[in-house]
Amino acid sequence: MPDPSAVKAALQAQEIETPSWGYANSGTRFKVFAQAGVPRDPFEKLADAAQVHAATGVAPLVSLHIPWDRVDDYGALAAHAANLGVRIGMINSNTFQDDDFKLGSVAHPDAAVRRKAVAHLMECVDIMDATGSDSLKLWFADGTNYPGQDDIVARQDRLFEALSEVYARLGEHQRMVLEYKLFEPAFYSTDVPDWGTSYAHCLKLGPKAKVVVDTGHHAPGTNIEFIVAFLLREGKLGAFDFNSRFYADDDLMVGAADPFQLFRILHEVAKNGGFDKAHGVAFMLDQCHNIEAKIPAMIRSVMNVQEATAKVLLVDLPALREAQAAGDVLGAHAVLMDAYDTDVRPLLADLREEMGLDRDPLAAYRASGYAEKIVADRVGGTQAGWGA
Amino acid sequence: MPDPSAVKAALQAQEIETPSWGYANSGTRFKVFAQAGVPRDPFEKLADAAQVHAATGVAPLVSLHIPWDRVDDYGALAAHAANLGVRIGMINSNTFQDDDFKLGSVAHPDAAVRRKAVAHLMECVDIMDATGSDSLKLWFADGTNYPGQDDIVARQDRLFEALSEVYARLGEHQRMVLEYKLFEPAFYSTDVPDWGTSYAHCLKLGPKAKVVVDTGHHAPGTNIEFIVAFLLREGKLGAFDFNSRFYADDDLMVGAADPFQLFRILHEVAKNGGFDKAHGVAFMLDQCHNIEAKIPAMIRSVMNVQEATAKVLLVDLPALREAQAAGDVLGAHAVLMDAYDTDVRPLLADLREEMGLDRDPLAAYRASGYAEKIVADRVGGTQAGWGA
Amino acid sequence: MPDPSAVKAALQAQEIETPSWGYANSGTRFKVFAQAGVPRDPFEKLADAAQVHAATGVAPLVSLHIPWDRVDDYGALAAHAANLGVRIGMINSNTFQDDDFKLGSVAHPDAAVRRKAVAHLMECVDIMDATGSDSLKLWFADGTNYPGQDDIVARQDRLFEALSEVYARLGEHQRMVLEYKLFEPAFYSTDVPDWGTSYAHCLKLGPKAKVVVDTGHHAPGTNIEFIVAFLLREGKLGAFDFNSRFYADDDLMVGAADPFQLFRILHEVAKNGGFDKAHGVAFMLDQCHNIEAKIPAMIRSVMNVQEATAKVLLVDLPALREAQAAGDVLGAHAVLMDAYDTDVRPLLADLREEMGLDRDPLAAYRASGYAEKIVADRVGGTQAGWGA
Amino acid sequence: MPDPSAVKAALQAQEIETPSWGYANSGTRFKVFAQAGVPRDPFEKLADAAQVHAATGVAPLVSLHIPWDRVDDYGALAAHAANLGVRIGMINSNTFQDDDFKLGSVAHPDAAVRRKAVAHLMECVDIMDATGSDSLKLWFADGTNYPGQDDIVARQDRLFEALSEVYARLGEHQRMVLEYKLFEPAFYSTDVPDWGTSYAHCLKLGPKAKVVVDTGHHAPGTNIEFIVAFLLREGKLGAFDFNSRFYADDDLMVGAADPFQLFRILHEVAKNGGFDKAHGVAFMLDQCHNIEAKIPAMIRSVMNVQEATAKVLLVDLPALREAQAAGDVLGAHAVLMDAYDTDVRPLLADLREEMGLDRDPLAAYRASGYAEKIVADRVGGTQAGWGA
Repeated sequence: MPDPSAVKAALQAQEIETPSWGYANSGTRFKVFAQAGVPRDPFEKLADAAQVHAATGVAPLVSLHIPWDRVDDYGALAAHAANLGVRIGMINSNTFQDDDFKLGSVAHPDAAVRRKAVAHLMECVDIMDATGSDSLKLWFADGTNYPGQDDIVARQDRLFEALSEVYARLGEHQRMVLEYKLFEPAFYSTDVPDWGTSYAHCLKLGPKAKVVVDTGHHAPGTNIEFIVAFLLREGKLGAFDFNSRFYADDDLMVGAADPFQLFRILHEVAKNGGFDKAHGVAFMLDQCHNIEAKIPAMIRSVMNVQEATAKVLLVDLPALREAQAAGDVLGAHAVLMDAYDTDVRPLLADLREEMGLDRDPLAAYRASGYAEKIVADRVGGTQAGWGA
Repeated sequence: MPDPSAVKAALQAQEIETPSWGYANSGTRFKVFAQAGVPRDPFEKLADAAQVHAATGVAPLVSLHIPWDRVDDYGALAAHAANLGVRIGMINSNTFQDDDFKLGSVAHPDAAVRRKAVAHLMECVDIMDATGSDSLKLWFADGTNYPGQDDIVARQDRLFEALSEVYARLGEHQRMVLEYKLFEPAFYSTDVPDWGTSYAHCLKLGPKAKVVVDTGHHAPGTNIEFIVAFLLREGKLGAFDFNSRFYADDDLMVGAADPFQLFRILHEVAKNGGFDKAHGVAFMLDQCHNIEAKIPAMIRSVMNVQEATAKVLLVDLPALREAQAAGDVLGAHAVLMDAYDTDVRPLLADLREEMGLDRDPLAAYRASGYAEKIVADRVGGTQAGWGA
Repeated sequence: MPDPSAVKAALQAQEIETPSWGYANSGTRFKVFAQAGVPRDPFEKLADAAQVHAATGVAPLVSLHIPWDRVDDYGALAAHAANLGVRIGMINSNTFQDDDFKLGSVAHPDAAVRRKAVAHLMECVDIMDATGSDSLKLWFADGTNYPGQDDIVARQDRLFEALSEVYARLGEHQRMVLEYKLFEPAFYSTDVPDWGTSYAHCLKLGPKAKVVVDTGHHAPGTNIEFIVAFLLREGKLGAFDFNSRFYADDDLMVGAADPFQLFRILHEVAKNGGFDKAHGVAFMLDQCHNIEAKIPAMIRSVMNVQEATAKVLLVDLPALREAQAAGDVLGAHAVLMDAYDTDVRPLLADLREEMGLDRDPLAAYRASGYAEKIVADRVGGTQAGWGA
Repeated sequence: MPDPSAVKAALQAQEIETPSWGYANSGTRFKVFAQAGVPRDPFEKLADAAQVHAATGVAPLVSLHIPWDRVDDYGALAAHAANLGVRIGMINSNTFQDDDFKLGSVAHPDAAVRRKAVAHLMECVDIMDATGSDSLKLWFADGTNYPGQDDIVARQDRLFEALSEVYARLGEHQRMVLEYKLFEPAFYSTDVPDWGTSYAHCLKLGPKAKVVVDTGHHAPGTNIEFIVAFLLREGKLGAFDFNSRFYADDDLMVGAADPFQLFRILHEVAKNGGFDKAHGVAFMLDQCHNIEAKIPAMIRSVMNVQEATAKVLLVDLPALREAQAAGDVLGAHAVLMDAYDTDVRPLLADLREEMGLDRDPLAAYRASGYAEKIVADRVGGTQAGWGA
């Protein structure tokens, strides 16, 4: 069995990234239920994210989303983050909310719209320069709703041209990560619908381009851990967007729908070196929970990732490999399940204590009074949401 | 082969219902792309719906949605409809956009919220009284996002209690139709997720309660025509919400994603008497197309339903039954496909001509100048959308 | 928190049923990989099943499958079971392997074939009489492969007529349970494709007819625990066929693909009284694992059901209900997850010790030498499989 | 609109490949229903395939499957084909029916098993040499049933090593095409589960390796025409396995489940040059219909491919591109649908007449007396099936 202190060391070194928009209002097409106390600007979002890190000790990074997190002075924003004990993580582009992007952005049939989209991506790289972020995270809503609406291959050509331009703009220590998604908001064809498409483009672009795996962006029945393992084997896994789904891209709390799947995914990460910082995999949470309290839900998600990580670190890899080599189906499966069935909550509570944290992050957050404080303080102004 | 004049007579008698909200802005959670010229109130929605009927001759009914279509004087609204040559169809309730409904409406754990929801449903029946509508169309967004969030059985009890109250309020010639939906906006459990749940409730409620089949509300692989056939056999099919989907509840134009499925569904309708007015099946389009022009898309959908109907009316039923009885798999399938493979557009153009309409409804609409007129006229005010 | 001794008492009272065919060879359409030592007749199948009960103490029932388990003297078979310490459970009919059943059995267009199918079902009831089994378990492969092949409604009529005949034949303490399945082996329409269809028929048949939920027989995204809860609320849940699936009806070991789903299902069972013997729910395993050793895989599945049961018994129901009533989404979810995250293996090992069993059933089975014995003894004859 | 004579010329030049195993018995894991008159050896399979070509004029190629089609003298088999007016198409390997392949073939943990698998593939290349076939078609059933059973990455390494060995063996004018499949017979992980995996391996192997798209091998909701378009853009589409599915890999007649999807796929083929012989795309039917007559079902499938091809050739591409460039969603969609809605059966009947064939291939086959002849003649011997 793995050495407990090594397990703890690995857990302590874990860095989970939370999304600034996860602290803002979000919802479904039917309704966005606003919550009292949600942030009104990027500074307040960072403050909330800092609470998650304060409670868990493993969430020091915060993803930004442009234009939602546009500010006048990005240096000031980065300094604000540092003061709060967190850092700016990836810069997420948004080419789906401008009226011009109704029929797409980088793959739009009109060259003028594509130029506008590329200009936005260039602005995101500028923000990387200004904030010290090393990653441009690209998700394109581009696609079509009806057969015949546009030419699938022509859209790939335009997409690649735009990606190439932006790739050329990246600095020496910067990179781009390209997310794929089966569907939504496009309902017939999506221009980057699966890992194969993202991988093929990244391969052509070069070593600074890698694939993002959002756990909610697959067809039913897709074996996500296979994709993760494959991309790690190819050195092309750039980042995770963790969240949960029962049906489509439900964006629920991480580990809430299928904790065993999260475990299997992280088992592939652990087994294939994905937790090594050298591999450069970003572990981001991309959830847009809309009926439960924002900060506690994020803490819960961070804890769920931690628990799954602890379990995969407890897998007895030598025993697993021996059983696998012997073709012992039940034995190999049992080795994996032994780790999954372990209750790692006491181990994590001990770890937190060693890190000077409360054994129970949610209790600590509740006790902090922060929730009441933001409700009282954040009066007036416009609450942040997907549209702002 | 069926008699062409009988086919035309049946097609001429067809009444398709369009949704008032299909003329307003709609979109995805990512973005609602507003369109110039969309209606600003229910009167303008009816005017647009009347254009669809004027062009096609088979869309005389318009569904209302409350509170989106709330007006001071429903009698005036009904009179307005009559002046335009259309009629008010079903009254659709909405218990998903009030902040109180965050955790549900009729199935909410809090009795006060449930009372509010029931009061809204009662208002809808009042509107039926005022407009002469005979159908209350119920879709509940109720459900939960997380395992454990609420008790599945308790929610059923509350749901049934509310339905019973409203059922008791129905007048002699009024009825309720209950829609089911697999998921969205609830992501873990939905309180009326499938036809079985709707059917079981309707059976207990009584003969005035029937099931609504929305073609976009099923799990992948569900055989929708089986459900339609089964409900017709039981006398429990109340209405259709037609639309298209490739993935989830995409709400695209009817017949755009899988025209053969639409044909198979309508074949069951035809074969089992569902086109008889006595059966009381409402044929509504419930599409929320968001990137294409509103009125032409609705005309196209109506035409697609018409074409599929024409094809199923051409099925050689005696030949089909003979092949089925003989266990002739290929032969029976071939009879069905012969009808499907037929190009019915000339037949429908002839029919329109006989009805005094243009042979090409879309061309007629384009030539009418209506599209330009509403863009010019409807300036100022607030455009209607899902939220208004 | 629940009282540990009450939890143990409930676990000790649990009765899980294993399928005779789970000890025989099975496979996919591509290949059946035969295993040395598998039974050659029903007596040997019972002997293997008795090993599973001996190791776990909670698997005293064995389902039979006719004609695979046809014997000359069913009294002798029942006595054999009793000698081995197990009992005959449900009698499973088979109307899918006779050449006459190519286009269906009870729903076949030809009345002669339907009569043959009904005669088989009557034989199954005779076997219930002879063995003391109280349940006829019905699964029909009936359906069609092509649109138009047969009439969906006519097939329902035939199906119901056959069910009614068999229902009338049931003795006072006998019942029938009707299984549904989305697809396979029929690929276009299936005559009992979902719980709604089974429920509607059972309702008409009467109180002796109940629904079987096979956990592998649903469309992707179906919330199975909702169905279970709904059927328990209606008093119509007759039995489970437990197994695991990632894609279709994979028939893997129970709990191997989604242990959290198994927990959620059993949570609904526990909360709604489904573990009470009075409810009459049969907890059968229906797995056809084909690459791993038969008996150990069955033991593992029984243990997985036990572990999931132990977890649901540990759910703090009063706390859960309080959080649910308060609309505390995160709190209610957390109560459920606390139970799921608990490692119940020590509790179950203690229970086994108290029951006079080995703490580790799989180790006990391995130590017994039974596996080697059957390989050595069962030489010659024809191995049992799906076809024999 | 396209020139009718050009359309006819293209249709006449079409070469569809049928699978030898499509003439033999096949079925589901529940039952293989044997048919009178099915072939007993590869020579008889070719004779049946020749009937399909005789009736349709566009099915001159026959895929072989080794070992099912193993013969002593492959030269004699090829000569027999030539005499019948057909040619040997692709050689399909089989590494899933030997007992040694229970846990995989080229990805098996045991090197000895892998060597055996590679030896089989080499034999297939030998058969290519002997028959003049230019394509090795590879589908691997390799995968695992349980999490932990084997190492996903290690299996990729072994797979690639085997592929590389075989690739090196290919002659100058030979190539390999690698098929992917979501699941079945492996139920947890499949070693080549999606197009991305096949593409990544083919890219590394070199220009002689291309991807096979089997239309039944995808997760629900997958946009297959996107994959086809993408692979054509990359020059990596090697072959199609056409068939139909409603649920999983149902292997029904081509075009029977979703004729519009078949049309969309072939539209991408047409638009992207895939019908040019230079592109080297093989258009194979891989159906295993099990309840309908073998030869007529194959004729029907060939006709369905022909009809879909005719429709895509009728697409007004200049009009389509103009509407796409203008962002005219409804207009572009309408151009595509105009072609789909056309009844091309008269055009194809005319073409057949011009080719000296009967206007109705199925009627011609029925009139030929072949069906009765093979039932009468093929008495004794062992019928061919998946296992022989």
